[in-house]
Amino acid sequence: MMDWLDSSIAAVKNKEMWGAFGIAVLRMTIILVASRVALWILHKSIDRIMLERASKYTASQARRMTTVGKLLRNVTAYIVYFIAIMLVLSEIGINLGPLLAGAGVVGLAIGFGAQSLVKDVITGFFIILEDQFAVGDVIQTGQFKGTVEVIGLRTTKILSWTGEVHIVPNGMINEVTNFSVNNSLAVVDVSVAYESNVDQAMQIITDTMKELKHDDLVKEPQVLGVQLMNASGVTIRVIAECRPNTHPVVARAINKEMKEAFDRNGIEIPYPRMVTYQRSMKEG
Amino acid sequence: MMDWLDSSIAAVKNKEMWGAFGIAVLRMTIILVASRVALWILHKSIDRIMLERASKYTASQARRMTTVGKLLRNVTAYIVYFIAIMLVLSEIGINLGPLLAGAGVVGLAIGFGAQSLVKDVITGFFIILEDQFAVGDVIQTGQFKGTVEVIGLRTTKILSWTGEVHIVPNGMINEVTNFSVNNSLAVVDVSVAYESNVDQAMQIITDTMKELKHDDLVKEPQVLGVQLMNASGVTIRVIAECRPNTHPVVARAINKEMKEAFDRNGIEIPYPRMVTYQRSMKEG
Amino acid sequence: MMDWLDSSIAAVKNKEMWGAFGIAVLRMTIILVASRVALWILHKSIDRIMLERASKYTASQARRMTTVGKLLRNVTAYIVYFIAIMLVLSEIGINLGPLLAGAGVVGLAIGFGAQSLVKDVITGFFIILEDQFAVGDVIQTGQFKGTVEVIGLRTTKILSWTGEVHIVPNGMINEVTNFSVNNSLAVVDVSVAYESNVDQAMQIITDTMKELKHDDLVKEPQVLGVQLMNASGVTIRVIAECRPNTHPVVARAINKEMKEAFDRNGIEIPYPRMVTYQRSMKEG
Amino acid sequence: MMDWLDSSIAAVKNKEMWGAFGIAVLRMTIILVASRVALWILHKSIDRIMLERASKYTASQARRMTTVGKLLRNVTAYIVYFIAIMLVLSEIGINLGPLLAGAGVVGLAIGFGAQSLVKDVITGFFIILEDQFAVGDVIQTGQFKGTVEVIGLRTTKILSWTGEVHIVPNGMINEVTNFSVNNSLAVVDVSVAYESNVDQAMQIITDTMKELKHDDLVKEPQVLGVQLMNASGVTIRVIAECRPNTHPVVARAINKEMKEAFDRNGIEIPYPRMVTYQRSMKEG
Amino acid sequence: MMDWLDSSIAAVKNKEMWGAFGIAVLRMTIILVASRVALWILHKSIDRIMLERASKYTASQARRMTTVGKLLRNVTAYIVYFIAIMLVLSEIGINLGPLLAGAGVVGLAIGFGAQSLVKDVITGFFIILEDQFAVGDVIQTGQFKGTVEVIGLRTTKILSWTGEVHIVPNGMINEVTNFSVNNSLAVVDVSVAYESNVDQAMQIITDTMKELKHDDLVKEPQVLGVQLMNASGVTIRVIAECRPNTHPVVARAINKEMKEAFDRNGIEIPYPRMVTYQRSMKEG
Amino acid sequence: MMDWLDSSIAAVKNKEMWGAFGIAVLRMTIILVASRVALWILHKSIDRIMLERASKYTASQARRMTTVGKLLRNVTAYIVYFIAIMLVLSEIGINLGPLLAGAGVVGLAIGFGAQSLVKDVITGFFIILEDQFAVGDVIQTGQFKGTVEVIGLRTTKILSWTGEVHIVPNGMINEVTNFSVNNSLAVVDVSVAYESNVDQAMQIITDTMKELKHDDLVKEPQVLGVQLMNASGVTIRVIAECRPNTHPVVARAINKEMKEAFDRNGIEIPYPRMVTYQRSMKEG
Amino acid sequence: MMDWLDSSIAAVKNKEMWGAFGIAVLRMTIILVASRVALWILHKSIDRIMLERASKYTASQARRMTTVGKLLRNVTAYIVYFIAIMLVLSEIGINLGPLLAGAGVVGLAIGFGAQSLVKDVITGFFIILEDQFAVGDVIQTGQFKGTVEVIGLRTTKILSWTGEVHIVPNGMINEVTNFSVNNSLAVVDVSVAYESNVDQAMQIITDTMKELKHDDLVKEPQVLGVQLMNASGVTIRVIAECRPNTHPVVARAINKEMKEAFDRNGIEIPYPRMVTYQRSMKEG
Repeated sequence: MMDWLDSSIAAVKNKEMWGAFGIAVLRMTIILVASRVALWILHKSIDRIMLERASKYTASQARRMTTVGKLLRNVTAYIVYFIAIMLVLSEIGINLGPLLAGAGVVGLAIGFGAQSLVKDVITGFFIILEDQFAVGDVIQTGQFKGTVEVIGLRTTKILSWTGEVHIVPNGMINEVTNFSVNNSLAVVDVSVAYESNVDQAMQIITDTMKELKHDDLVKEPQVLGVQLMNASGVTIRVIAECRPNTHPVVARAINKEMKEAFDRNGIEIPYPRMVTYQRSMKEG
Repeated sequence: MMDWLDSSIAAVKNKEMWGAFGIAVLRMTIILVASRVALWILHKSIDRIMLERASKYTASQARRMTTVGKLLRNVTAYIVYFIAIMLVLSEIGINLGPLLAGAGVVGLAIGFGAQSLVKDVITGFFIILEDQFAVGDVIQTGQFKGTVEVIGLRTTKILSWTGEVHIVPNGMINEVTNFSVNNSLAVVDVSVAYESNVDQAMQIITDTMKELKHDDLVKEPQVLGVQLMNASGVTIRVIAECRPNTHPVVARAINKEMKEAFDRNGIEIPYPRMVTYQRSMKEG
Repeated sequence: MMDWLDSSIAAVKNKEMWGAFGIAVLRMTIILVASRVALWILHKSIDRIMLERASKYTASQARRMTTVGKLLRNVTAYIVYFIAIMLVLSEIGINLGPLLAGAGVVGLAIGFGAQSLVKDVITGFFIILEDQFAVGDVIQTGQFKGTVEVIGLRTTKILSWTGEVHIVPNGMINEVTNFSVNNSLAVVDVSVAYESNVDQAMQIITDTMKELKHDDLVKEPQVLGVQLMNASGVTIRVIAECRPNTHPVVARAINKEMKEAFDRNGIEIPYPRMVTYQRSMKEG
Repeated sequence: MMDWLDSSIAAVKNKEMWGAFGIAVLRMTIILVASRVALWILHKSIDRIMLERASKYTASQARRMTTVGKLLRNVTAYIVYFIAIMLVLSEIGINLGPLLAGAGVVGLAIGFGAQSLVKDVITGFFIILEDQFAVGDVIQTGQFKGTVEVIGLRTTKILSWTGEVHIVPNGMINEVTNFSVNNSLAVVDVSVAYESNVDQAMQIITDTMKELKHDDLVKEPQVLGVQLMNASGVTIRVIAECRPNTHPVVARAINKEMKEAFDRNGIEIPYPRMVTYQRSMKEG
Repeated sequence: MMDWLDSSIAAVKNKEMWGAFGIAVLRMTIILVASRVALWILHKSIDRIMLERASKYTASQARRMTTVGKLLRNVTAYIVYFIAIMLVLSEIGINLGPLLAGAGVVGLAIGFGAQSLVKDVITGFFIILEDQFAVGDVIQTGQFKGTVEVIGLRTTKILSWTGEVHIVPNGMINEVTNFSVNNSLAVVDVSVAYESNVDQAMQIITDTMKELKHDDLVKEPQVLGVQLMNASGVTIRVIAECRPNTHPVVARAINKEMKEAFDRNGIEIPYPRMVTYQRSMKEG
Repeated sequence: MMDWLDSSIAAVKNKEMWGAFGIAVLRMTIILVASRVALWILHKSIDRIMLERASKYTASQARRMTTVGKLLRNVTAYIVYFIAIMLVLSEIGINLGPLLAGAGVVGLAIGFGAQSLVKDVITGFFIILEDQFAVGDVIQTGQFKGTVEVIGLRTTKILSWTGEVHIVPNGMINEVTNFSVNNSLAVVDVSVAYESNVDQAMQIITDTMKELKHDDLVKEPQVLGVQLMNASGVTIRVIAECRPNTHPVVARAINKEMKEAFDRNGIEIPYPRMVTYQRSMKEG
Repeated sequence: MMDWLDSSIAAVKNKEMWGAFGIAVLRMTIILVASRVALWILHKSIDRIMLERASKYTASQARRMTTVGKLLRNVTAYIVYFIAIMLVLSEIGINLGPLLAGAGVVGLAIGFGAQSLVKDVITGFFIILEDQFAVGDVIQTGQFKGTVEVIGLRTTKILSWTGEVHIVPNGMINEVTNFSVNNSLAVVDVSVAYESNVDQAMQIITDTMKELKHDDLVKEPQVLGVQLMNASGVTIRVIAECRPNTHPVVARAINKEMKEAFDRNGIEIPYPRMVTYQRSMKEG
């Protein structure tokens, strides 16, 4: 870059560069237009091959093809842009090849500064190869949870249920939790007072759960037993296997049913309790 | 730099440098003035091409052009300043080219110290290329949330709703949340007492929500069900899809309507409860 | 890569490359098909040798063979894909060998960016070699706990009890806790009021524990003594050795038995207590 | 440094160095005195050009000139000290040039150890160039908030409102919040009891705010609505745009006015509430 | 690796390699069997020399020999496996020597990726050399506490008291706490009410402690004095030196004795106190 | 180091080294004694020049001279020790020069390991050069606050007000807060009950503050206004400018005066309040 | 290492190495025995010179000699073990010299992996040189507090007051607090009720403190004043200078005296207070 700088300083000084300026601008315009056309053709082809035919396959194959199709669009865009930029730079006399292959202070700084970019691409490549998650899955990575919209070469876009788009570099996706592969488990803890008969309460819950109907329920809910005894009461745990990622919906349904069953059977949900000892005090 | 130092020490010693001093100062002044003029012309051109024509395009295209226009102003300023500094330094006999291309202790320190600068520029480049967010979007990165004012090559300026300007280096923008792409979801949790009829309360909320009118509302609010049962009451969740980033406004409107509907129907919002057992105590 | 870029730019310019294009596509298709067939044969062989014969061995040997079998499937997939990609790239004239062996800015960035990939593979190799955990074990690493599904060369999949799949890179598995090797210990703390006779309470617990029957119990539960005296009462600790990873189930059984024994013997679980001094106050 | 060490050890051994000692001390004293004089002249010139003329310009230009003037004083001090130290060292026969340009263990350690120094200078340079903040602005970076006193090449001094001086290296100023660029927003949340008429309360607040006079107020305060409904009451939010960084003063004025308006209209600020159920208990 | 890849690609192409395949498999099988036999002999010898003779020595020497014996088993396993893998690889024509000694992108990545492996081995070596802890000691490192089961060259296995096995890489064992070297100190804090006579309470505790008998007690417990005065009472601290790592057992014994002594002497453990002022209020 | 090791192993083998041993020990003793004498003379000179004359200058100059004097003692000690160790090592035939200038595995490890040492020295140098703080100032860095005792080349000693000495490496002193440069501000927040007349309370505080006399007070305390309205009362803020680092003393004086003024005027400091609703409950 | 591996593989193949095996084992045994003897002699000499004569010197000198003596034992052990291992390895034909001086992948990994080892030694060296703390001092570094037992070249052993031994690598001892250099300050905060006369309470405390006798007390305790006014009462602070590290003992003595003085003078320690407003409520 320094060599180029020296020569361009020289060029600026004697003003000889201005003659070839017009032609170079014309050629660069052609390169940019051609690259946009090439990209449009490539994206159309990818859509036809990967995305539109996806419906012909099983759900698992289609999921895979959608993911790879969106990635390919992303990758071809980078490649076409990269080639176009290289061509444009070579038009104005800059050849980045030797610079990138050489070393020195600038190279050291670029090498260090670009390492997270390289890590993003490597990790993105393995996310696809290992099929860790696909477009449409609900995942959580770090503090971001939502539905995967796009897996790009460098970043993944996650759409949260409240509408925000989280854009996460792939290199930051170290540990990822996928909620869409297996059935989920709705876990509901309910407290009953010490004065209640625990066996009776568990029986009522079991009976209520047997009658629970919900589209997302895979197995009948199961009463696990006395999870905890603390100052205000006895906590009973209920679990219910349901279709992937539907556990909040199922838990709300279980909550509503239990509230009504407890109302019918006169079982009280315990308030916090306290024993108070009143003492009289001589006025201060 | 050391070579230069040695020679300048030599120069200072025999005082020969002072003759050429006046001419060099004059030439440097000319360089600085010329660079300011060049920068003014470039910025005017960018404004005319990118910013003023923005109104002729669709909202999405205009958004993009505004962002790129502000970036181009930023980039041209860096390039012009960089060339001017190089010319000034070459006037006083310092050629930074070999230094930057060489290595050694100074080079090592600069290479390490400049890596975050390089990372800033690379990340800034990809923020624009991948269209992660544009000027005018409401985003959150780390603990900083606000409206994007400028996306520069090295830093992004975010204007918080209380008036502060957050200046964040692009290299620190690892994970970014964009609130302006999709519709938002206002989530309101309301508690009713155990003694209340839950079905009736949900019916009242549903009826109230049906009559809610708000400009930012996209779909009619929806009552999800019993979200939680805890010591003080039953929590019912209401959600409402609204235009991007308007969820606090919509949530305030829902709060007000529900408060009035509950007042009309005599549904109480539960206070914390406690059961107290009084015991007498022998005086200590 | 730069050399290739230069030549491909040259190629794109004079359009000579298009002749050989058709043949190269054909050969690449053959390579890809052949690699899928080879992978299918290898996976079948591994399944036959490692997984299907597992039943002939003792539990420990079978566990080991299942783990190594799943790993071998994983490793052979990487090797076959790697060779296929190299062959495809050599078809289109790119030889990555010299690039990877050389150095420079790109090499520096790749070397830094790939270090976590290398660390993943090294750590994965030692997890298998040292038999830290096997497929089917319940482990916890960081905040992720669950049953190991697959130990791959680069990542380990952990299935949580609520159904989520955690995908953790092996390099992040620094410190791992294995719950499936030894018997577990269920620890139950129960509070009794100060007014109660502590000796009598401990006797009742001991008697109840002697009669406790549970399939997962390895030894009779043991009453350790007075663990803590705090403002609301005296805490007594009970421990019970049980089969690996069954301690929540056993703790629930102990909770239920103790609740019923306390009900029978009139021992109260203490509520929080407070002494209140009432003072009259002149009205403000 | 080792070469020098070897020769100086040799010198110390044969005591030949002591002859030239007196002359060297004399020359070094002259260098030190001359550098202090040069620095004094440079600082006087900077003050005359940059700081004293600042009053002739607009506020924004003056702000910029003050910042750059203080920085120039800082930079010229470093340069003069650096040249003086180099001259002194060359007097006693040490030439640091080759050492700094060379490599080896010492060089490696220095290169690594000095990277944060280089990062400080680079970041400081960009703070000035990008006009992120200027002397006199109120900024926050990390946990340090206050008025900027000096922006140096390596450190920035921030004066907190309670009188402490925070000295922060520029390299630690990653993300900075500037409070002095735009108008601030005073946000006041006030609670009213559930029994109150919310519409009436909001009307009273609106009326009170209309009559609020304050020098720092830019726009009339605005009542946003019901921000929150919780166990003790209804929270109403009021916002008021005011001059930069005056929001605590304006919020205090709003607090005082509202307290008096509520007193006049008999609206109570709600205390925490609790429902207590008293049960008798058989004595333990 | 690339050279090998190129040649193996060539080999795969012309299918000449398949002739020598059978012989190579045979030789590799012999190598693997021989290495298992060698390992079996080495482990038997180590057991005989180090572990079985341990009983002839003093406790400290035996402890050391057990630790070193288990480590030697671990180290010989690594060496034998390493040699076997090298021999197998040389059978199939891969010589890793030049690769590991060379450099380049792959070497850089491996060098960085393997640094934590090297750190593990170095730290493990010093743990043994400095006798920081031995097999059977109770230690805590980070959040993991338990009895040391094996100190390997790369990892240490710690068995927690609830049955989990923590596997910690030696390089993560930066700061380690050893509970098994010195006598432990059981610390028990007990509160008495303000109304109690502090001197009398301390006397009762002292008397009770004098009569305390416990196998793990090394010295008679000691009453330190008034540790804290807070809102609910006066806290008195008791300490008791006991055999290493038995302080929870001794603390439970002290708790039980004090509870009974307080019951006998009518000293009350203070409940939290609060002064309440009741005011009448005009109905809202 | 290896070369030396090889030769010394050879030497140990043929026992020839023992002849020259006595003489070397004698010479080393002389070197050590001479270095102690040289250090004593240097320290005496520094004390005479820098520390004893300090009283002749203004406070600011004296402060600077004390700091630099203590640093010079520290630096000369390092230099004399360094030369002595080099001479001793050269006596026993070890020349560290080539080792330190060379590279290799040992050099790499030393270079990395020594980087924090280099950073300490560089930062320490700038602390003095930039006059960030001086001996006797009260500073806070990280969690350590106290009076600076010594600023050394590598570490700074801070004496906390409770008597501990904190020894902090200069490289850890990234962000430092100096309490001794400017006047401090004592900030006192006091609550009054809602029933009180806020204007009257503020008037009483203002009157009391006008009469407050304290040696450390620089300006008359100022009543800022209503800082906060919360559940228990109205918070009024008072500030008072006082001499550097005396704000805890002044705040205690203000506390005492206000307590007495409130007692005289019958203004109550509000206790927490709560509204309780008693409900009867059917016995469970 | 690879060269050695290749040759030893060759050796293992043709079984020629077994002839020289017996002699090598014999020689290695002699080396090991000789090194143990040499170490025993060196340790005895160090003990005689450094530790046993310590009693002849002042406390400060003796403290230093004990520390250095223990370090010397540690260092000589490392040197003797290092030479012995080198001799043993040279017996079996491995020369580590060239390996350590060379570079490559293995060297890179070792260099990175060993950097914390080097940092430990450098920091340990400066802890001794700067006399930061000595054997017998009470220090705190990070979360570990206790009495220093040994300062080794690589690790420092700290004995906590409850009996655990903390082993901390010197490189982790960044910031260290030494409690044994200066007198400590016992700080006791005591609350009195608002109704109490603050002046009288302070007078009683002052009088009580005047009569306090304690061996560890250096100066008479001092009553600082009203530290805090909060909801429950007025906090008065008392400080007392005492001998190093005896502040918990002195604080306990002050607590006991004040409790008794308050009992005698009828000053009450305030319980938390609350104002309750009782409202009747229509039954829900």
